[in-house]
Order: sequence, then structure tokens, then C-alpha cells
Amino acid sequence: MTGTFGRNIRISLFGVSHGEYIGITADGLPAGMAYDQNAVERMMERRRARGDISTSRHEGDKAGVISGLYNGYTDGTPLTIIIKNTDARHKDYPERVLRPSHADYTSYIKLAGYGDFRGGGSFSGRMTAPLTALGGFLKSALEKKGILIASHLSSVGEIRDDDFEEADEGILKEQFAALSAAPFPVINGERGDEMKNAVREAAAEGNSLGGTVETAVAGLPKGVGSPFFDSLESVISHLAFSVPAVKGIEFGMGFGLAYLSGIEANDQLAFDGGVKTISNLSGGINGGISNGMPLIYRVVFRPTPSIAKRQQTVDLLTKEEKPLELKGRHDPCIAHRAVPVMEAVTAIGLFDLLLDKGRDLWKAGF
Amino acid sequence: MTGTFGRNIRISLFGVSHGEYIGITADGLPAGMAYDQNAVERMMERRRARGDISTSRHEGDKAGVISGLYNGYTDGTPLTIIIKNTDARHKDYPERVLRPSHADYTSYIKLAGYGDFRGGGSFSGRMTAPLTALGGFLKSALEKKGILIASHLSSVGEIRDDDFEEADEGILKEQFAALSAAPFPVINGERGDEMKNAVREAAAEGNSLGGTVETAVAGLPKGVGSPFFDSLESVISHLAFSVPAVKGIEFGMGFGLAYLSGIEANDQLAFDGGVKTISNLSGGINGGISNGMPLIYRVVFRPTPSIAKRQQTVDLLTKEEKPLELKGRHDPCIAHRAVPVMEAVTAIGLFDLLLDKGRDLWKAGF
Amino acid sequence: MTGTFGRNIRISLFGVSHGEYIGITADGLPAGMAYDQNAVERMMERRRARGDISTSRHEGDKAGVISGLYNGYTDGTPLTIIIKNTDARHKDYPERVLRPSHADYTSYIKLAGYGDFRGGGSFSGRMTAPLTALGGFLKSALEKKGILIASHLSSVGEIRDDDFEEADEGILKEQFAALSAAPFPVINGERGDEMKNAVREAAAEGNSLGGTVETAVAGLPKGVGSPFFDSLESVISHLAFSVPAVKGIEFGMGFGLAYLSGIEANDQLAFDGGVKTISNLSGGINGGISNGMPLIYRVVFRPTPSIAKRQQTVDLLTKEEKPLELKGRHDPCIAHRAVPVMEAVTAIGLFDLLLDKGRDLWKAGF
Amino acid sequence: MTGTFGRNIRISLFGVSHGEYIGITADGLPAGMAYDQNAVERMMERRRARGDISTSRHEGDKAGVISGLYNGYTDGTPLTIIIKNTDARHKDYPERVLRPSHADYTSYIKLAGYGDFRGGGSFSGRMTAPLTALGGFLKSALEKKGILIASHLSSVGEIRDDDFEEADEGILKEQFAALSAAPFPVINGERGDEMKNAVREAAAEGNSLGGTVETAVAGLPKGVGSPFFDSLESVISHLAFSVPAVKGIEFGMGFGLAYLSGIEANDQLAFDGGVKTISNLSGGINGGISNGMPLIYRVVFRPTPSIAKRQQTVDLLTKEEKPLELKGRHDPCIAHRAVPVMEAVTAIGLFDLLLDKGRDLWKAGF
Repeated sequence: MTGTFGRNIRISLFGVSHGEYIGITADGLPAGMAYDQNAVERMMERRRARGDISTSRHEGDKAGVISGLYNGYTDGTPLTIIIKNTDARHKDYPERVLRPSHADYTSYIKLAGYGDFRGGGSFSGRMTAPLTALGGFLKSALEKKGILIASHLSSVGEIRDDDFEEADEGILKEQFAALSAAPFPVINGERGDEMKNAVREAAAEGNSLGGTVETAVAGLPKGVGSPFFDSLESVISHLAFSVPAVKGIEFGMGFGLAYLSGIEANDQLAFDGGVKTISNLSGGINGGISNGMPLIYRVVFRPTPSIAKRQQTVDLLTKEEKPLELKGRHDPCIAHRAVPVMEAVTAIGLFDLLLDKGRDLWKAGF
Repeated sequence: MTGTFGRNIRISLFGVSHGEYIGITADGLPAGMAYDQNAVERMMERRRARGDISTSRHEGDKAGVISGLYNGYTDGTPLTIIIKNTDARHKDYPERVLRPSHADYTSYIKLAGYGDFRGGGSFSGRMTAPLTALGGFLKSALEKKGILIASHLSSVGEIRDDDFEEADEGILKEQFAALSAAPFPVINGERGDEMKNAVREAAAEGNSLGGTVETAVAGLPKGVGSPFFDSLESVISHLAFSVPAVKGIEFGMGFGLAYLSGIEANDQLAFDGGVKTISNLSGGINGGISNGMPLIYRVVFRPTPSIAKRQQTVDLLTKEEKPLELKGRHDPCIAHRAVPVMEAVTAIGLFDLLLDKGRDLWKAGF
Repeated sequence: MTGTFGRNIRISLFGVSHGEYIGITADGLPAGMAYDQNAVERMMERRRARGDISTSRHEGDKAGVISGLYNGYTDGTPLTIIIKNTDARHKDYPERVLRPSHADYTSYIKLAGYGDFRGGGSFSGRMTAPLTALGGFLKSALEKKGILIASHLSSVGEIRDDDFEEADEGILKEQFAALSAAPFPVINGERGDEMKNAVREAAAEGNSLGGTVETAVAGLPKGVGSPFFDSLESVISHLAFSVPAVKGIEFGMGFGLAYLSGIEANDQLAFDGGVKTISNLSGGINGGISNGMPLIYRVVFRPTPSIAKRQQTVDLLTKEEKPLELKGRHDPCIAHRAVPVMEAVTAIGLFDLLLDKGRDLWKAGF
Repeated sequence: MTGTFGRNIRISLFGVSHGEYIGITADGLPAGMAYDQNAVERMMERRRARGDISTSRHEGDKAGVISGLYNGYTDGTPLTIIIKNTDARHKDYPERVLRPSHADYTSYIKLAGYGDFRGGGSFSGRMTAPLTALGGFLKSALEKKGILIASHLSSVGEIRDDDFEEADEGILKEQFAALSAAPFPVINGERGDEMKNAVREAAAEGNSLGGTVETAVAGLPKGVGSPFFDSLESVISHLAFSVPAVKGIEFGMGFGLAYLSGIEANDQLAFDGGVKTISNLSGGINGGISNGMPLIYRVVFRPTPSIAKRQQTVDLLTKEEKPLELKGRHDPCIAHRAVPVMEAVTAIGLFDLLLDKGRDLWKAGF
């Protein structure tokens, strides 16, 4: 297997769900960035399982920086964050009885029997913990430059939260502020309660639910991204699909654009201190490059495949079909926990692309 | 700007819409691959503008290989394909009057005035021509290994083509065969006629239409892709969003998974000579890795932003808002021409990931 | 700063000399490689400071694998090795008084004051410890494929060890076997004693000595490397110059080729079961690619710049010139300790290039 | 085979000696760099075969830019330069009779019979023509920033040119100025005449000579490069060994440091408006990073392996040993023609590393 990310920074995610440590190494960070431990911990806390609608597995998730910082600032050397796995109960998982729509079978094929598959191994959602720690740090660094990132749970099943305001950055920032104070990551608290009820009901049935997460970025400078292979959409989608259970992504109006005509879909232009679009169906991106309007995108999370309901599966050892009723601690919905994860990967992608502006230094001289 | 793609191969796309040449260089191809000139030309022909529902701009699009082949086989050195731009009418495009939802403004910001923006410059859909040539070659090479790729126009506006069969590879291959003989890239010819009528109507009004393209891969080996940053979805979406006008992508059931419960969304397993899924809502991918079922994904193309209808825009020189009624040769719909382009980028992405299996040689010895 | 290496594998070296941990992450290793803990420890032991001709700083150097192994085999996920820094005495180093020919000044410039410069920070020779651990593992893996790597201290000052046999692999392997049992890494023990005496004398004077290290590889398959940017020499030299204090490298006859004519320098050919060269002044490489003969190269290590002798330097704070007489624990010669380090980086470079042969799988099918 | 170079820019070299075109693509150049056609042509002219001491093969070597420029400036898209091969006489080369110390055998092994080996194929010294064109452009761009690069033929056989002044940039720049006006690339014209005589004598005997080329850089900012894998020496050596026939490289005093003690080898420091070294045995680099002193390095070129003298070789078809007396147009010495090539690769390597300073933009804001 392979898996590094980044052109200006290079990140490598390591470890497995039930190993001793999981972690991440990021090479190429500028020296002199203040490391905001509180910001990282807040992100980790938001990602952590809580309350009655998440797994009861307790994850301490202390993200410890073992290299790359000096006196609280990045020192220009690779930043390495590790997290100790403390609460792994290995017996919860059946051996070689494949969980449908999980990576059990594909990881077995891929690693030819050498993988540590306990708890999903390197395919586990737990691997998003170090990703969230690094992304949380970069998100806090972007904030200092006026680039704000926020995600919310935009739907669970049929229940939809209000949308992010796409064309007015002032209103969008108010939504961000409200979200940061909200106990459940939705704009409309009533809808949030309905979502939680729906998740509880699914859990009670041994079932699970899917959902969508919407992410917005305010304050993103114009000119971030490139046409073709380093397009803003290419980079963000690359990272978004790294998050387990994501099966789709759309920018701006996304799939809705299929039903519109050109005159409806185009964002006409106005001049108001600078060039602005009147609407923002493009999600802040044209030709792969940010246009100064809010960046907006949505991802869909499949329902958690680990469910208690009876399913048909195959035993890899006997090659026999057999029924499966999973026990153990499972999230009846993963989408709400993924909210900070989407913020994190957005921060990582934007940070990498923003460093690209360093190319402009050429004209300024060295 | 930056823009190379690939880990095992490295491709670089060069040129601009109205420059002398556009082209592509691919480093890292194995030596000894037969170059199927006919296959490449067929792909180019399919991408070319035709009939009354496409631009009247005539593109010769002779894809000339200037390096990397010897006696009809790849020779292990970088393959470079160039295409001469022959039919560029520079006067068709207004200067600095920004076309809404085009890359005019973002490319101006990005390149600080140094870009050649005629015809969209390096942001033009024309840049997909060399991509299609290279992808056409790789698609034909994959075919020799039994890996078949096909795309169809799955919708234009509200009109939907039939879907690809997702769970039965035999039926899927019949659909592929029918498509390869079809004059318009749809499974259901009647729906194709309706689509063409809708596009003609939009064109008559100086308007345009969006659409979706569905891609399927049959015969893909199990075990292609990695979890996280080199996931199959990450790599394919990265390339898919490189194609101008794509604003969303979904794998398998995609956004529809948001509305399902776990028991509905899971692909339960059977054993039939090997492990198979009974349904295929996952689109052939679990944990970022192919599971041996058909790979299925859809992208959405926005309506062509170049329309004749009156729009409000801004003149970059005077900074004044002004109305714009575009003249010139424009596609009233881009989605149907993008069908072979999606096949091409799929081939490029899969080829790159398949070479990764070379890592296994380690165990075999050298 | 930046610093990752590799095309097929990607390694990232992290930590600083006096931080809590130093370590290395390697992505892209094949699954199923047996991890030979003993082999790694032997390499670490050989690198460790010993006896009266090395620094008295005690380094425990326990190389702990925290990810990437399962049941003693690589599991296909990134391998991360960390080493705890246990014996750091921070007071030994003057603050901001630049040590001549050390990286004190350049690291200060580079990191603009944010670097942790204690003990050389990320520029320290200590950073070769994780490099040696990873390289030691890969060296042991190559051995199982019949690819043997060995280095020896080929000179200290004017005293030269015997040379590696360059044209007869049988004799070369005997030299390897003798070296592996030798307490000091030289072929000729008498010369080794002279070297040690010379180093002791230099140390007694508060001075230091330079030296050269020669590396040879037996059993390397033909066809490793590429012309131009991935030439065998390019890749090995890239890694060799990553090792602190290396200031030159030469392959085969190296700089001696400047004094020869073509007929003297050419390695004429014979057929003996296969194509062989009669001499091996090319060091086993033609056109950047291995030719099946032993790979031979030499690097030069500058004398350790940390010496007790009085030198003129500059105080960065006061910007005044001042004399410097360094105290603390310093190696009077670094070359002999670098012997396993050169083996390690050779193993890393060859392993990365060997994986490239996976490209050939294309023809074999998947 | 593989072969791309660069972290901030990415270059790919394509074509073969006797194909239709050779060329190079560079992705990631900043927009707005003036393309100095004259500077490129001067470099190409210097590289070209001339007079009685070079091959009589006539190479037109018109370096045509087919993408990446607009109105004389880089436009931010990949720059592609192609050169038409005009004077290829295919019959000059024996088939499958291996030329000793050439890449004939290794390229055959590598490409398994699919390579175009006429004239050395992709291993030919001709491939340095596009490298020189791109490097010539980047060299001229660096000059505008006050970074001057020059190389000279520092030795042929036993005859040595004067050395570059290493510690006084003023004198060094005078040497550069004199060199740029010299018809033969040496500092000491008398020695140049002796070198030419020696080459003529070798040619008359059907033999060839090796030599060394020294390169210096004046005006290089402090802080270029990183410790370990992106060290200045690593990057320059990587490129230097890409140049055919280079078998060794040394920075500053290089291999001479093996014979010095620490007090002799250290460059002590003075303060004269800034920190300076008094001597410059380190060649302007400490810890992989430029220290503001002139960068100095030397490479050795083996004697041209193509000689008329009788040699023993092997016929790949018959597997028989046989004598070989090469005919055709060969350079009796390649080192003097490589002088601009070394300047070119130095420019490419430095340009790539200098762009890394863009990371600093982070602190400045975007």
C-alpha cells in the first residue's frame, strides 16, 4: 500500500486501530508557526465519541507532538504527532468473517494476509484522529490569516439542517460563530434534535444511518489552486475521499447543476470594491481556482456498515456463506463525528495549496 | 501554477487553447506496450465536436507522438504527444470582459496578467484533447489485460439514460458493447434523442444545459488502491475534477446513501467461485480498494458557462459592471463530449494505481 | 525546510538531537517483509560510539517500531521507528557562538531563530540513527534476495585500508565476510591500528581527522536505475550527501578517470555465462544502470568540525569576532562511525530503485 | 524507466538521440519570467560541437518553445522545449555489438529489447541539449536576481586550469567575466592550448581523454537547501550524475578534506558587514545549506568510451567475444562540451531550491 499526501507539505499517516500508536508526520511546514494546543484539543474533543448516539468505546486521544516544535513554534523540521491506543478490546471482532461493506475483504486481498485487521487496522475510522490533530493545528494557523473553516452536519437520513449561506460572507461568519458554540454540529438546533432521535431509533434497531456534511471556508484568498491536476476541487476531493465512508462530494450547487440551464447556473458578476459574484452556485471556485467567494462543498457518508442486524456474509477460512450479527461498540451514525474531520482535511488541503503562492516570491526577489 | 499527476507514472499537460501546440508528457510507462493508434484516434474522434449539438469550431486534433515509441511499442522513455492548434479565431473572445462562471477572472488573478487567456488559455476544455489521447492509449492497453472502461451520458437536464448494470458484469459488458457501436453515447437511444432535442432547444435560446456522465469498469482486479491518501476514490476524483466543468462526483449509490439505513446500504456477501457482493451500492470499492465488482461512478457537468443570453458582468479594465452577450462558437452542452474524456482519465488513474502492484514483485524476487 | 526521499517508498526523518525523540517514517514498503530485529540492532551497535576514539556521549539508541509491523512482518502500512533521546546535556553547547564549519550559522539563517539548535538540532549526526535503523532493516531484506552491501573505512588522513576487490565478486564476498567479523571496520587490521593511533593523537591535540568510506554491493541485479534523473549514481549520491560531513563521492575509479585515456578507462567485455566486464573502473554502473558487476563507490568525510583547538568565530548576538575553544564530547573522527550509515543509505536507495522493477509486472499481467 | 526531477518545479526529459525530437517539459515555473532567447542560444552554441577537438556531427539544435510562453514571458503553464534531430546517420552504429563502458548493455537489459538504441537512445549525450536549453533559461533568470553561475574546464588529463577563487567573490566575478569572453572555457588560456593539443593527440591515436569541470556560483543567498534529503549537495549531485559520463563530484575542498585535520579544514569566521568565512574549503555549504560564500564544486568526466582503438567486446546476438574498432563521429573528449551543461543543471537545481523560500511567505501573509 502507499499513502502520502501533498506537494508543498508531505504527510504520512501511520499506525493501525489496535496497534500501540497511531500518528502522522508532516514535512515541509514553515518554521515559526505557533502551535495552538488548545485548538488541537478542541478538535479532538469534537471528534471524540460522546453521548448516547456514538460508540461507547472510550478514546483518550491525547495527541502528543514528538518532533517539529521548539518553544511552542514549529521549528521547520517534520512535525510528528502520535496518539496512544489505550482502549482496544481485540475480542470484539470476528476473525475472517467478513463484515459487509467494510474493508475486511479488500484489505485482506491487498495485504495478502499480513495486515493487522483488528478493528479495521489501517482502514479504521480511528486513523482520522491524527489527521484531525494535524488538521486542527493547520486550521488554527489559517484562522490567524483570516481564513475560517467550518463544517456542519447538513443531513441525517431525510432530516436536513439549514444550509450554509453561500453568497454573503458576513452571514456565513455568523453561522460559524453559532456553530462553534453549539453542542451538536448543526445550524438549526431543532433539526439537530430530530437527527439525534433518528440516530437513537436506528441504534435501537441495531441499524445505522447515513448523512451529509457541508463545509464552508470564509476569507479564502483569490487565486488558490490551479487548472487541471492541482485544481482546488481535485485536492480537496482527494483528501475528502481519504476519510472512510465518504462516497460522494459536490462543490457549490454540485449535482443540482445537472438540472439547470446556463443562465440559471452562471454566477453573474458585480463590482463592489472588487469583483464579486452575485450568486455562488460555483462554490467559490472557477477553473479550479478560488474566486474570493465562500468555498462550499458537501460530502456524503454512508451509513456505518457495522450493524447488529443480521446480514449474509462469507467466512474466508471455510469459504462458506453464513449469517452475521455483529456485536461490539459501533457508531450508529458516523457523519456527525466526521464534522471536525472534514474541517481538518480542508485545512490540510488549503494549507498545501496556499504555500504554492510562494512561487510568487520569485518576482519579489529573495 | 502547478499540475503534474501520478505516483508511478508522472504526467504533465502543456499548452494553451490558442497557442501553437497543446500536449502531454508521461514519464514512467513500462517499455513494450503496443501503441494502438486506431484506439487513440477513435477516442479523439468521439471527443471531437460533431453534428448540430456541438460547437462549429473544427479541431483537427491529430495526436502526434514525438517521443517514447519505437517500432510501435513504448520504449521506456517518456511518451510525449502533441496536437497542433489549427483553427483558432482569436477575435471571438472579448478582452478582459469577464465571462460569468468561466475561469476568466480566476486565471487573471492567478497569472497576474501573464496568462494567454485567448479561448480560455490553459483552462480551456481543449486541454482535454491530449488527456484523451494519452487516456485512450492507456484504455486500450488496459483492455488487453481484460480491464474494460466505458462511460455514457447518464442525464441531460431532467432526461435520464438507463443506468449501468452494477452487480452483474455480464450484463454490464453487453451494455459496453452496445455503447461502443452507438452514434450517441447513451444506453437508451430514445432518451438520447430526447437529450439531443433538449440541447437543440437550449442552443436555439442562446442557453446551455448541464448533465451527468456515468463511468463503469469491468474486469478490474481486486486489490487496486490503498486506504486514505491513495484510495481509488481519491485518485479518480482527483483526475475527474481536473476535467473542466465537473462539480461533483459520487461512487456507487453515492449521495443516495445519505437516505438509506445500514441494512439497506450494505452489500451483503455471497461465495460463488470467490467472494462477491450481492448488490453493489459501494460501486466496487471498500476502504479505498477495489473489491472485484464493477467500479461505478458518476460526475456532474455544469451547463456550459459560455452562453449568448444577456448576463451581467464586469470589465476588468474599467471596473464597471456591464451587460454581456457572448458571440462565438460554443457548446450548448459539454457533457456528451466529455464521455470519452471521463473514460480517458479513468484509464490514467487506474493505470497509475495498477502499477503499484509491482510492489508485490518483492516477494516474487527480482 | 523540506526533506522527504523516495519515489517508490517515501521516507521522512523527524526530530532533533536534543528533543524527546528522533525517528523515521517509511511509506510504501511491501507487506510481508520479515523484520529482523537483530540485524537492526547490529547496525545500531556498529554505529554507536565506542572505545577511546569516539565521543563519550552514551546513546542508548533503542530503535522502537511503533507502526507498520504485525506479527514480525511489515503489514503494508507506514513503518515508523522512534528512538528516545536519553543522554542530552544541554549546557555543553555555547549559545549563538557559531562553531566554524558546523551548520550553526546556516541553520540559524534557515530557521530564522525558530530552530532547536541544541546539539546541532536537526543537523546533528544523531539524525543518522533512525536512518541506520531503517537502512539496517532494508539491508537485511536485500540480503535475503542475495544482494549484499558492505562498507569499510578506506582511509583516515594519509593511512589507507586495502581496497575492495572490484572485478571478482567471489573475492569481494570474502572481504565482506571478514569485515562482518572485524571489530574495527577495515580490511587490513594493521592499517586499522594505525588509523586508531592517528585518531587518538588528533584527539589528544584537541584536533580531528577526515577520512573516506568505501561501499560495495555484491549480487545487485542488472538493470537497476534509469538514465538521467533516476540514475543509480543520482539516487545514491542524493542519499550519501544527506549524511552530515560528506563532501564528495565517486563511483568506480571516480576522479582517477580524469587522468586516464579511453582505452585505459574502458571496461572491456567478456562472455562467461553472461556478459561481464573484465575490469570494473565504472563501479558496476553504465548509463546510470547497474551492469551486474559489483557496485563500488567512495565518499569523503570532512574532519569533525567540533574541535577543542582555538578558532576564530563570531558571536551572533554581539556580532563580534571572538575566539572559541569548544568543550564537550566530540568525535575526533566521524568516518569510522559512518561506515554502517553508508551501508544503510545504500540499502535505502537500492530498495527504492529495485521496487521500480515492478513496472515490469505490466507485461506479466496482474 | 523513470525520470522526473524537482520538488517545486517538475521536469521531464523526453526523446532519443535518433528520434524525431528531443525535448523537455518543466511544470511549476512562476508566471512572468522573461524568456531570454539570446541567453538560451548562447548556451546551446557553447554546448555545440566545434572545431577540431569535437565530433564532426552537426547539430542544428534549435530549441523551440512550444508551450509556456506568452508575449515573451512565462505564462505559468508548463514550459515545453523541443529540438528537432536533423543530422542522424543511423548506419554509424554497429548493431548489438556492445561498446565497452557505454550504456549499450545496460539499456538493452533495462528495456528488454524495446529501446531505440541508435546513437545511444535515451542515454545519449544529446539528451543534454534540452537540459541545456532549460538550464540556460533558468541561469539567465537567476542572473537577473544577482545569482551568477559559471563553469570552466578545470583539467584534461594531467593538465590543470587555474582554480576558481573560492573566498573572494569580487575576484571570482572577474574570472566569470573573463570566461564569458573566452573562446575555450578555461581561466588560463595557455593551459587551454595545452589541453586542446592533448585532445588532438588522443584523437589522432583513436583514443580519448577524461577531464574535470569546476562550477562556481556567486551571489547565492544564504539559507538555500535543507539538512538531509534536500541538502544543496544532494540536489546538485543528483542532477550532476544525470549528466552522462560524470563519475564523481566534490564540493569545496572535497576529497582533499580526507587529508586535513579539523583545524586545517574548518573555515573560521569573521564579521564584515555580516558573517563570512575566512577560507572556503566547505564550498559555500554547511549542513546542506548555503552560507553566503561562493558555492564551488567539481565533477569528473570519464574519457569518452567511444574510441577507434581496438577493444574486446561481446556480440549480443551470437554471445561471442569479438574485437571492436569503432568508426563514426565521436568526441575525443566530452568534458569541455559539458561546461555549459554543468552550468545548466546547476541553474535547474538552484532554481528548484530557491522556490522553496516561498515557504517563508507564510509569515508575511498571503
